[in-house]
Amino acid sequence: MKSYRKELWFNAPSRVAFINITHEVEACLRESGVREGFVLVNAMHITASVFINDDESGLHHDYREWLERLAPHEPIRNYRHNDTGEDNADAHMKRQVMGREVVVAITDGHLDFGPWEQIFYGEFDGRRNKRVLVKIIGE
Amino acid sequence: MKSYRKELWFNAPSRVAFINITHEVEACLRESGVREGFVLVNAMHITASVFINDDESGLHHDYREWLERLAPHEPIRNYRHNDTGEDNADAHMKRQVMGREVVVAITDGHLDFGPWEQIFYGEFDGRRNKRVLVKIIGE
Amino acid sequence: MKSYRKELWFNAPSRVAFINITHEVEACLRESGVREGFVLVNAMHITASVFINDDESGLHHDYREWLERLAPHEPIRNYRHNDTGEDNADAHMKRQVMGREVVVAITDGHLDFGPWEQIFYGEFDGRRNKRVLVKIIGE
Repeated sequence: MKSYRKELWFNAPSRVAFINITHEVEACLRESGVREGFVLVNAMHITASVFINDDESGLHHDYREWLERLAPHEPIRNYRHNDTGEDNADAHMKRQVMGREVVVAITDGHLDFGPWEQIFYGEFDGRRNKRVLVKIIGE
Repeated sequence: MKSYRKELWFNAPSRVAFINITHEVEACLRESGVREGFVLVNAMHITASVFINDDESGLHHDYREWLERLAPHEPIRNYRHNDTGEDNADAHMKRQVMGREVVVAITDGHLDFGPWEQIFYGEFDGRRNKRVLVKIIGE
Repeated sequence: MKSYRKELWFNAPSRVAFINITHEVEACLRESGVREGFVLVNAMHITASVFINDDESGLHHDYREWLERLAPHEPIRNYRHNDTGEDNADAHMKRQVMGREVVVAITDGHLDFGPWEQIFYGEFDGRRNKRVLVKIIGE
């Protein structure tokens, strides 16, 4: 069994952002030399997500608005977590809706994807350095 | 390490549907010959889910209503994604709530499940051919 | 390839509870002897979650309130699932928002975590015996 590990770093210029990381994950896969196995891609921070969906700017706008309705950033004081001095309680909720991680099948050395699947880093508390872990196991 | 891959195809007669695929995944597992490992089951489309829950028709009715409240299909024009000519923006939201994939442990050649766990394909934009990937790794 | 399996048992004194199980999972990992691989941690029941987030009591209070808004326990009669004699339909929804499982990378014999990642058992229909599965594969 082979294993491979890499960290991807981000510093999103806004509080909320969606960044397509499919090419970075594909580069990791090539570097790993794994032909059959699984790749795990997960946010290493608890106010961010990794998820798979469409690379369409209208959809990303809709996600932003929808998540804001489900877990509004304001008023900050509505969240007890923010009594600790943070203002990111909403980001902890948004991340649960969008998920922490994806596991993708590796077949014949490629990400085994349907026609529109793309991997995104979902940031909900940006403007700081944050990481994603790519871990591959297989043969 | 052994690996196994199969696609399951669906064409749900309605926009929203929940289809129990536990037996199909068990058949894949038997075919794979894997006794210890993981099976990944994921939607290959970004308006569908794979999830684990109860096979109870009342619950599925409740899921349908609840998801419709969280991310209503209508009015179509409320979603910028639908300006592209689609009418399925809500399906991209519903799929995030229910999840893209499940990873299930394989122990002694069986899906290592609790008493009520069943695997479902969750369709949120049906009436077309769509696929689920079953990928197994182990020994 | 090595594999390892253990069940963790819980009987939460309240309907809703969040229990930090990071140390139990780390103990499993040590027992397994696996240095490189994946650990899958999943609820074996369909009204409970395993998720990764922060061990902060204010945040857990916020999660409880937020999930109650998204999927209220009362009125019981609003859910068709509860016509079966259950009163836990809301727990089946809450579990989908928080997720069934996490997959965590194992690197050099440790859970490969960011600074604040902790694993939680999320109970939404407690006061009974319920289980979590820890399954490890790797080398």
